[in-house]
Amino acid sequence: MRHLAGTDTGASFSGDGGTSAFPGPDREAVRAVLREARAAGRTALTAPEGRLLARAYGIATPEEGTAADADEAVALAARIGFPVVLKIVSPDVSHKTDAGGVRVGLRSADEVREAYEAIVRAVRAYDPTARITGVQVQRMVARGQEVMVGVTTDPTFGKVVAFGLGGVLVEVWKDVTFRLAPVARADAASMLDDIRAADVLRGVRGAAPADRAALTDLIVRVSELAADFPDIAAVDLNPVFAAPDGATAADVRVLLHDRPPVHRRRRHTKEDMRAAMERLMRPRSLAVVGASNEPGKIGHAVLRNLIDGGFAGDVHPVNPQAGDVLGRKAYPSVAEIPGEVDVAVFAIPAPAVPAALREAGRKKIPNAVLISSGFAETGEHRLQDEITDIAEEYGIRLLGPNIYGYYSPWHQVCATFCTPYDVKGGVALTSQSGGIGMAVLGFARSTNTGVSAIVGLGNKADVDEDDLLTYFADDPHTRCVAMHLEDLKDGRAFVAAARATVREKPVVVLKAGRTGAGARAAGSHTGALAGDDAVYDAVLRQAGVIRAPGLRELLEYARALPVLPTPEGDNVLVVTGAGGSGVLLSDALVDHGLRLMEVPADLDAAFRRFIPPFGSAGNPVDITGGEPPATYEAALRLALEDPRVHALVLGYWHTIVTPPMVFAELTARVVAEFRDRGIEKPVVASLAGDTEVEAAGAYLFERGVAAYPYTTELPVAVLGAKYRWARAAGRLPGGDAR
Amino acid sequence: MRHLAGTDTGASFSGDGGTSAFPGPDREAVRAVLREARAAGRTALTAPEGRLLARAYGIATPEEGTAADADEAVALAARIGFPVVLKIVSPDVSHKTDAGGVRVGLRSADEVREAYEAIVRAVRAYDPTARITGVQVQRMVARGQEVMVGVTTDPTFGKVVAFGLGGVLVEVWKDVTFRLAPVARADAASMLDDIRAADVLRGVRGAAPADRAALTDLIVRVSELAADFPDIAAVDLNPVFAAPDGATAADVRVLLHDRPPVHRRRRHTKEDMRAAMERLMRPRSLAVVGASNEPGKIGHAVLRNLIDGGFAGDVHPVNPQAGDVLGRKAYPSVAEIPGEVDVAVFAIPAPAVPAALREAGRKKIPNAVLISSGFAETGEHRLQDEITDIAEEYGIRLLGPNIYGYYSPWHQVCATFCTPYDVKGGVALTSQSGGIGMAVLGFARSTNTGVSAIVGLGNKADVDEDDLLTYFADDPHTRCVAMHLEDLKDGRAFVAAARATVREKPVVVLKAGRTGAGARAAGSHTGALAGDDAVYDAVLRQAGVIRAPGLRELLEYARALPVLPTPEGDNVLVVTGAGGSGVLLSDALVDHGLRLMEVPADLDAAFRRFIPPFGSAGNPVDITGGEPPATYEAALRLALEDPRVHALVLGYWHTIVTPPMVFAELTARVVAEFRDRGIEKPVVASLAGDTEVEAAGAYLFERGVAAYPYTTELPVAVLGAKYRWARAAGRLPGGDAR
Repeated sequence: MRHLAGTDTGASFSGDGGTSAFPGPDREAVRAVLREARAAGRTALTAPEGRLLARAYGIATPEEGTAADADEAVALAARIGFPVVLKIVSPDVSHKTDAGGVRVGLRSADEVREAYEAIVRAVRAYDPTARITGVQVQRMVARGQEVMVGVTTDPTFGKVVAFGLGGVLVEVWKDVTFRLAPVARADAASMLDDIRAADVLRGVRGAAPADRAALTDLIVRVSELAADFPDIAAVDLNPVFAAPDGATAADVRVLLHDRPPVHRRRRHTKEDMRAAMERLMRPRSLAVVGASNEPGKIGHAVLRNLIDGGFAGDVHPVNPQAGDVLGRKAYPSVAEIPGEVDVAVFAIPAPAVPAALREAGRKKIPNAVLISSGFAETGEHRLQDEITDIAEEYGIRLLGPNIYGYYSPWHQVCATFCTPYDVKGGVALTSQSGGIGMAVLGFARSTNTGVSAIVGLGNKADVDEDDLLTYFADDPHTRCVAMHLEDLKDGRAFVAAARATVREKPVVVLKAGRTGAGARAAGSHTGALAGDDAVYDAVLRQAGVIRAPGLRELLEYARALPVLPTPEGDNVLVVTGAGGSGVLLSDALVDHGLRLMEVPADLDAAFRRFIPPFGSAGNPVDITGGEPPATYEAALRLALEDPRVHALVLGYWHTIVTPPMVFAELTARVVAEFRDRGIEKPVVASLAGDTEVEAAGAYLFERGVAAYPYTTELPVAVLGAKYRWARAAGRLPGGDAR
Repeated sequence: MRHLAGTDTGASFSGDGGTSAFPGPDREAVRAVLREARAAGRTALTAPEGRLLARAYGIATPEEGTAADADEAVALAARIGFPVVLKIVSPDVSHKTDAGGVRVGLRSADEVREAYEAIVRAVRAYDPTARITGVQVQRMVARGQEVMVGVTTDPTFGKVVAFGLGGVLVEVWKDVTFRLAPVARADAASMLDDIRAADVLRGVRGAAPADRAALTDLIVRVSELAADFPDIAAVDLNPVFAAPDGATAADVRVLLHDRPPVHRRRRHTKEDMRAAMERLMRPRSLAVVGASNEPGKIGHAVLRNLIDGGFAGDVHPVNPQAGDVLGRKAYPSVAEIPGEVDVAVFAIPAPAVPAALREAGRKKIPNAVLISSGFAETGEHRLQDEITDIAEEYGIRLLGPNIYGYYSPWHQVCATFCTPYDVKGGVALTSQSGGIGMAVLGFARSTNTGVSAIVGLGNKADVDEDDLLTYFADDPHTRCVAMHLEDLKDGRAFVAAARATVREKPVVVLKAGRTGAGARAAGSHTGALAGDDAVYDAVLRQAGVIRAPGLRELLEYARALPVLPTPEGDNVLVVTGAGGSGVLLSDALVDHGLRLMEVPADLDAAFRRFIPPFGSAGNPVDITGGEPPATYEAALRLALEDPRVHALVLGYWHTIVTPPMVFAELTARVVAEFRDRGIEKPVVASLAGDTEVEAAGAYLFERGVAAYPYTTELPVAVLGAKYRWARAAGRLPGGDAR
């Protein structure tokens, strides 16, 4: 044996899973390895280097060593014990298997010798220029299920840790879940349940279950490793063998950033956010910069809406050319306005904004609403950077640019050039796009949805979703937040704000642009699995946000969530007059992760007392089609009265015996009666019938029952959204109060 | 060696995949095996028996033999060649792996001997009463991807063949597809592309692709084996090793029916169906049995609707107590009615139906519409069997019982007790449930959807979906068929009728009850994977049917499909005034399997000529929000004119510059102009704006543009449904004209 490079039996880590004995990470060891790699100009660590990093963070790896020739390989194998695996060690070979650089299951000296030669031959053929450092000889850890654990750097969220089953199939199925790194132990544990193939870890077909504690530790530790060292771009532990007694990372790949990432976005404290947003949403005085007497102009429409909207404070037109605008004294500049101004709305051409913004800064106006377009969205990034710098200099918060403005109905603020809206209610809506903002407005008006805010976010040069979430969380009028977004300027700030808000009220998000692909560390396995949307989806879920699959669902969830009481348990009961609706409602319940309660015998008997003998109790309770109002009422009373029933789905069938408005009135009356008695349960209804059911639906909605005509899916979808929130907010057993 | 039971090296089949040399199945060999098993009272074949069946149908299996003791096993292994697999052979052990009855990768005589003893020990421990026939010694075929191929007996569709990847993961992921057995070669080939993990067979990470021809042959042959022998309940070929040069079934399990299944449902020829349905849907005369002068009564409502609906033929009340009903002469019995009667509508109590039905039979009335309830749905199965027998005796077709009746607006037939409906159009709707029928009616009225039929099917004692499909396929008024169904009385007849209809016009199906589990041959692996819905889903897709995910989609697809022209290619272009809508529309396109066309340079340049410099061509074409009607019009004209664009998705943004009705009028005008020039492309629109967009949407819909307010998903969903039909009908390249 000439040289046994990096030989290290590391037996103390093998298979112990490192659950409790681990004394804490050895950061100095990691630093030394990273320093050496940087010094050599490498951004990919070798396998032995990767293994050192893993060991420094208490991640078990199999006994192994690196051999420089076949003799060394045989000697190493004998020392480690058969069977062994041989793997090429080369800084130039990323996918060892593809290069023919891996041979498994070697059981004798002869097989090891033969495999060594074969590997070197194959890699030379694959890439004649590849530098071959040696061949790794590793104890074959074949017990347990192959999984993969990795870390990648997401453009929005930074370091995220990934978990999925290992092997080729996982790449094809993309059954992987993600969390922000570093990950807390409980979150890491939840990842094991998050993949579709979760059952495999629980042991299927007689296999022993995986050691969940060891696997959880391993996830936590690799997430900490990556979080502790900003230099690390990606880590792939693949495969990890999840055995019944431990988890061992058979292969460790680490990639470094070409250049450490820099975060440049301005950050604000929670208190600063709240203070600024309060002055924005509940201003005492506003200025409209670019206010105009000319109808068709944006500066005219904004001022007109503010005045017509009945804003109680002062509204000051700013226009150097006009003596007065819409009957109000106009000032040539914000500087001339007497007294404090909380918000300056800018409706002037983009090139004029910087100078006007400086004036607002000198006047100490805390909020600038930049309706003006002609910034980043038209390629004018420099102009946008300029106004952002001015805002930072003067401590102004910028909303926009490139927005329709904003509505704050409870405070009579209608600072927009769009049509006015003043129906007060519990929904706060934000949209990144103006088109979507107009759809929000039309839908709200059409369904008479009361709102607490509609805010355009546009280019998000400064104010973004986390500022508004911080405000909405405390705003007593807001009972639900709904946000359309295309990107997040600061993913981590959003998650923090969303988590805090979700504890108080539901947050619904429509994330547009699900199909794009972000730029990530090239060559990372985990990175390749982390499509933009996969990370967004997992992280939003982790934040407790309800993700709407489309625009219509965003609007419908926003409308219904404030109306529905929070359920106090998982038992959903379906009561229907139409068997056909009952079947479809049951399908929808399963689709939305809700539980058809198993009806206890006494309750079942109680239902049977008044439904026809050919109807069916159980769940759905089918009272059958020809029943009079009294049967609907009796069923409703039974379900509301029984504390074991937590939510109610009604399937109404339009008949002459019980016409739509009769059903609507009796349902609203009984629900109100129980509410007065302190019994509040979510009640949703699917209305199958002729067009009269539309009026019945509107009537019920206004009275706290989320009722919809011609659909069996929507009532269940909104109930499902309420349940998702209740779980995320920790209001239900099995929930998560993070 | 005492006895080498069933030893057979079968080398000629191993690994050849049997693509062309196979001379045809040896049915006599199969018969002999089945006979022997039946004689022994067994419904599970042994492994060697299963292998005989496979070989008789040209399915390759590995070299093998059965050993009665360890010595035999060693001798067999030596003859077959190492490595080998040992598997228990026992009529009492279904899941060999679970019982510890399988050992793989045995490379020496010692390992075989040790494994033999271990297996017998393990099985004895697992089930001390299990009879052990011996241990199978099999050549280990380890090359290639593990897949599974199987056949199970579905309660609705009979024999279905399944294909999926093998191993434990496939059970967890349930990534399996199904076809009716026997399966044609092209259909079998399509199964390989149908699973989510299809890429694995194409070769991932440098692996060689599987031999698709061999795999396809294997699927065809096992499907033929099962179809040829009604006695066979299930076949599991699992695993099958799909190598680059052949496919080998390493394990063959065959289960027989406890008792051969009997099909009792009455069947009709296509000509008989068509003749009967024509007289039902276009009758010259009707009788209402149970017609009444008493408002509130069903027999009153039906007669009133028929008279008020303006039915041009004769309507005869039948009522022994009344001289006349609603001013028309009443007959005591159908026997007394002068002349032919095409349809008798029954609105009498269930117990009175048999006698009245006999009278109708004697009068040679071909169609009985049984509104009456009180049959199978209330547990009165015997009464339902009685009327079915009477109908068969007299050659009467039965619609119902337990239905709301039916509408045939083009022929002024409104034979129902529900509210009348007379808007003529292209949609034929059927529903199994009355509640869903009422939702159909309300939705149609609310959206002013023209219909060619609304038919209640209820208990489907006789007339079912395939009868109506046969009629609708030829009906010149019907342009789209939409069906709500909870079960199919004859799955194969439905598939045949649906396939024939789909060639002419789209068929949309809402299958309710997706979550139930059907009863299937217990102990079959394939059966366990064949959840009710998995089989329905695959078979409906194979039939070319568009499956609606919910009630609302059924209704929306039915409304839009007749309006949209058929696309002539895959290139979809999005033109939007709101960038935000463009992103959501693109998301929806990907969700619905549609292709955002790559815009050629010349077309791109043409768009750039009139959109603002900060807008973006490409796809979506973002004309930006502030543009006048002329820009929308220019973009629309470019897209309609260019033959490379096959379908158009518009994303309208409500602005003062281009208000909703201005957009609607210009769009409708330009689309009509091109239609007059013979250029017809599907155009759908998403309308983001204030409530005026609702009127604009209705205006556009009436003029052939499927336009929807407040949603970016629905316009794309209906376009996706049109594309799915166009492909299934063979009207698009890449489609399927079966």
